[in-house]
Amino acid sequence: MPESPIRKLAPFAEQAKKRGIEVIHLNIGQPDIPTPESALKAVREAQVEVLSYSPSEGTSAYRKKLARYYQGVNIPVDETEIIVTTGGSEALSIAIGVVCDAQDELIVPEPFYANYNGFATANNVTVAPLPTRIEDNFALGSIEQFESLITPKTKAILLCNPGNPTGYVYRETELSQVLTLAKKHDIFVIVDEVYREFVYGVPFTSMLSLAGSEQHVILIDSVSKRYSMCGARIGCLVSKNKGVLAAALKFCQARLSPPTYAQIASEAALETPQSYFESVNREYTQRRDVLMEALAKIPGVRVGAPSGAFYCMVELPVADADHFAQWMLSDFQDQGQTVMVAPGSGFYASPGKGKNQVRIAYVLEQARIKRAVELLAIALTQYPQQ
Amino acid sequence: MPESPIRKLAPFAEQAKKRGIEVIHLNIGQPDIPTPESALKAVREAQVEVLSYSPSEGTSAYRKKLARYYQGVNIPVDETEIIVTTGGSEALSIAIGVVCDAQDELIVPEPFYANYNGFATANNVTVAPLPTRIEDNFALGSIEQFESLITPKTKAILLCNPGNPTGYVYRETELSQVLTLAKKHDIFVIVDEVYREFVYGVPFTSMLSLAGSEQHVILIDSVSKRYSMCGARIGCLVSKNKGVLAAALKFCQARLSPPTYAQIASEAALETPQSYFESVNREYTQRRDVLMEALAKIPGVRVGAPSGAFYCMVELPVADADHFAQWMLSDFQDQGQTVMVAPGSGFYASPGKGKNQVRIAYVLEQARIKRAVELLAIALTQYPQQ
Repeated sequence: MPESPIRKLAPFAEQAKKRGIEVIHLNIGQPDIPTPESALKAVREAQVEVLSYSPSEGTSAYRKKLARYYQGVNIPVDETEIIVTTGGSEALSIAIGVVCDAQDELIVPEPFYANYNGFATANNVTVAPLPTRIEDNFALGSIEQFESLITPKTKAILLCNPGNPTGYVYRETELSQVLTLAKKHDIFVIVDEVYREFVYGVPFTSMLSLAGSEQHVILIDSVSKRYSMCGARIGCLVSKNKGVLAAALKFCQARLSPPTYAQIASEAALETPQSYFESVNREYTQRRDVLMEALAKIPGVRVGAPSGAFYCMVELPVADADHFAQWMLSDFQDQGQTVMVAPGSGFYASPGKGKNQVRIAYVLEQARIKRAVELLAIALTQYPQQ
Repeated sequence: MPESPIRKLAPFAEQAKKRGIEVIHLNIGQPDIPTPESALKAVREAQVEVLSYSPSEGTSAYRKKLARYYQGVNIPVDETEIIVTTGGSEALSIAIGVVCDAQDELIVPEPFYANYNGFATANNVTVAPLPTRIEDNFALGSIEQFESLITPKTKAILLCNPGNPTGYVYRETELSQVLTLAKKHDIFVIVDEVYREFVYGVPFTSMLSLAGSEQHVILIDSVSKRYSMCGARIGCLVSKNKGVLAAALKFCQARLSPPTYAQIASEAALETPQSYFESVNREYTQRRDVLMEALAKIPGVRVGAPSGAFYCMVELPVADADHFAQWMLSDFQDQGQTVMVAPGSGFYASPGKGKNQVRIAYVLEQARIKRAVELLAIALTQYPQQ
């Protein structure tokens, strides 16, 4: 199993904190937005006597309401096409297990969410990375390049839309091209849409809203970011392919059920008014703008401009961002503060790629983002380049 | 993925209920014992504003208290040797992922908890079954037979103690023999002790309390049965082997964290007084006795007498218990009631074995157990043998 690039520097951060240094975390996507009160209240007031298993596919009440949510965002599914999982993580792991045997391949545009590699490895599946470029903000590039990666062992294409770590939001034409390719080669598209509600000023298209996607698309979703309830561990797998649903259910039955309290919270969270998302999106748009403006002022820094999620990949004027990120925790401080970023190499499968990049999550208050980028700029001037 | 034998007849039970028939469930180990009030109260009163990720290995507060619990039951571990998981299910799946590569083998005494097969299959690992006999109450048998199953691909022995579905509690001498064998061949023992607190009139020995077990034992545990909180989905993986812990942590980091609310409940559940377990054990002892007495009266029935957990394997005078179990749901009723059992074949990896057996869970009130066995007896007299 590969190590998580988001968490592997944690021991250095711990040591810095023990030395009395305040570490500003740009490395992890834990939003500071309050969880909707409806979700918290539902748990406080739940009448539980025996905290029993739920159905393996999740409670019917939750799946029914979830189906209505999807119908409202132009994804025509009913409750029988939704399986509740323990976070988007489990949905992804199950989707890979359903479509791949050992030694099969999964095509993933890189950079990608590092744990995709972990889930693939745990399933004995190989990731075939499709290179994308920071200069293009990580758009998909030519479909011919994509097609050249398909082999007899390719079972699926895995997309994250909006993208973690890139913040890229795929255009409808790109999604259509991918779907056409998948249908031509009779493979699946697994699309991770956990950041669906976080899109800033561009249109969002769900892969499962495309005509003809029914038999080929597996949608991965989660309440973690949408309702700022990462600790719930509730996600889901959505598909209109009955074979996929039947196979996924077997994986779910083996692990018995998703967590009960968290399903109660997630069901109630669906009552969250649209105004919540609007105010959250306004806040993230401002945070992104503050971050972009601040990064633009640092000499030698290049950013893949994000229009969704709350991450971006940033190229730094350093040869080894892994070393630089660790150095900021172990050897740098300014007025008792330092900053933690996620080294970029962990988001690439191609050896050597992303060495001068880091992922930044803009989930903090604007003033803290400003100060964090200031710290980054100071650190770059003091960092002894080898 | 194999189907769960515990849940595969669920559609027939649903149809019976739709026809107005009451189905008494002897098929599933969902206890009716109330969850301790301390656990429910802790969740009701938790001060949550942002339901955030916990550490991947679980909260430090919970792991510290858990370590004290283990020390109190003669398992000398500290918090750094405990990783909190999403149910015992996840702990098992991770343990298999840690010790096995694809195509490796796992030796498991059969009959075994059916989902072991699911977790092994999902990890591309093969189960090598060690036969045990209902006449011996499923004791381990000769260690030579055990050793003959070990090949260069064998990475671990997986034991369930007390056993699901057998109710067998391993003697210390049996455990010592298994440990000696594991050390001789340098393989692991994964021991699932989720029923540790449910032992009736015989001594219980934890594998991890044996001298010399440190580098070879991975303990799987769960709050599900102990505190009647199956829906929490909190378990743990315990080991004194640092390599195992480091590898397991990578799996845990990939899936981010175990559920937060459920950890709050689980931590508080540890305050449950010993008297709770004593009264629960008294109740289960009585239920077992009621079940054994009732089954003994049915001609042609043979039982592997259980001394732990709350299951037993029962041999019925039928050729195909799968068919009989389904027939009880689809074609039988007495005074508007029928009974659901788990067909035995699903608990065996050897083809053809367990065909005339079923697993019975005695998690219901005594009067209901009596009535359920009465229904079973009537059904056996009416069942048209092919």
